[in-house]
Amino acid sequence: MRQIVVLRLGHRPERDQRMTTHVGLTARAFGANGMLIAAQDMSIEKNIDDIARRWGEKFFVRSGIKWKDEVREWKGRGGKVCHLTMYGINLPDVIDDVRAAGDILVVVGAEKVPAEIYGMADWNIAIGNQPHSEVAALAIFLDRLHKGRELSRVFKGGELQVVPRERNKEVRRVSHE
Amino acid sequence: MRQIVVLRLGHRPERDQRMTTHVGLTARAFGANGMLIAAQDMSIEKNIDDIARRWGEKFFVRSGIKWKDEVREWKGRGGKVCHLTMYGINLPDVIDDVRAAGDILVVVGAEKVPAEIYGMADWNIAIGNQPHSEVAALAIFLDRLHKGRELSRVFKGGELQVVPRERNKEVRRVSHE
Repeated sequence: MRQIVVLRLGHRPERDQRMTTHVGLTARAFGANGMLIAAQDMSIEKNIDDIARRWGEKFFVRSGIKWKDEVREWKGRGGKVCHLTMYGINLPDVIDDVRAAGDILVVVGAEKVPAEIYGMADWNIAIGNQPHSEVAALAIFLDRLHKGRELSRVFKGGELQVVPRERNKEVRRVSHE
Repeated sequence: MRQIVVLRLGHRPERDQRMTTHVGLTARAFGANGMLIAAQDMSIEKNIDDIARRWGEKFFVRSGIKWKDEVREWKGRGGKVCHLTMYGINLPDVIDDVRAAGDILVVVGAEKVPAEIYGMADWNIAIGNQPHSEVAALAIFLDRLHKGRELSRVFKGGELQVVPRERNKEVRRVSHE
C-alpha cells in the first residue's frame, strides 16, 4: 500500500499551531499516514494523537525533524516528493504521473519556504495559481490523488463515529469488545 | 450566473484572523463571489481586498454582519443555504441537488457554531465525517460544485499573474493599458 506522508515546513509554534493542526487533521482525513513538522511542537503531536485515538485509524505526527534529511532519506528509498506551491505546474497537468508513482512525501509550507525545496522536489505543484491556503491545497491534492474515495472511507478502531444526519449531531460510541 | 457567498460564523478577531483569511482566500480562489464575517474585523477585509486587487477578479468581504438576518434575506430571495459540518449528510450524496440549485450561501463555522444553523440550512453537508478543517471543507465543496474547473480559471484584471514553472517562481506583471 502506498505511503503518503505530509511534511510541514516553516511552522512557528507561537503563531502556526492552529494552521498546522488543520494541516495534520486534513492529512489524516484525506488518507495520509502521518505528518512531519520541521520544528519542535509536542502540543500538536499530542492534540492530533488524541483525535486519531478517538476517531480511528493510525496516524503519526513527529515534530522537530530535520527536513532536508527527511527529504533525502525519502528519495533514497525510492519515494517521490511533491511540493505544493502556487508557483508550480497546475495539478491537472501532473496528477496522473503522481498517481503512477509509489510513496509520496507532500511538502506544504507556511507563508515562506526555503528556496531549496523547489530543487529537491520531484514536482512543484500548484493547486491553481492563485494565493489561498496550504490546508485547501493539501485537501484538493489528496482528494484528487485518491479520486475522491477518501470522503466515503470508514475509519476503524476509534471510540467515536458520526452518524450522518440531515439536521442534528449524532455521534455513536463504538464498542470494541 | 450563480452567486456563491461564504458566511463565516464564530470568528474571534483575537485568534481566528489567519484561519478566516484562509477561508476567504480559498473562497475566492475556488470561485465564490464574496465572504460575510459574523464579527467586525476590518483588517481581514483590507487584507483580502488587497490580494484581490493584486491578483484579479472581483471578490467582496463584509464583516460585522448579523448572520441570521443574512440567512433569512438570502432564503427570502430564493437562494439556498449549505452548512458545512462533519455531522451532516456526506457530500457525494447531495452534490447533484446542490448543483441544480441557484444561488448558494455556504456557511462555515470556527470551532463551534450556533445550533440554530442546523435548522436554518437547506443542507447540512459533511465533507467526510471526520474532524478536519473548515478551510479544507470549503475547498473540497467548491471544487466538487464546479467539477474541478476553477483550478484552470484565469483571473482577470489583476496586477500579477503566476507563470506556472517546474522549478522556479515566476510572476508576471500585467499591463492594462
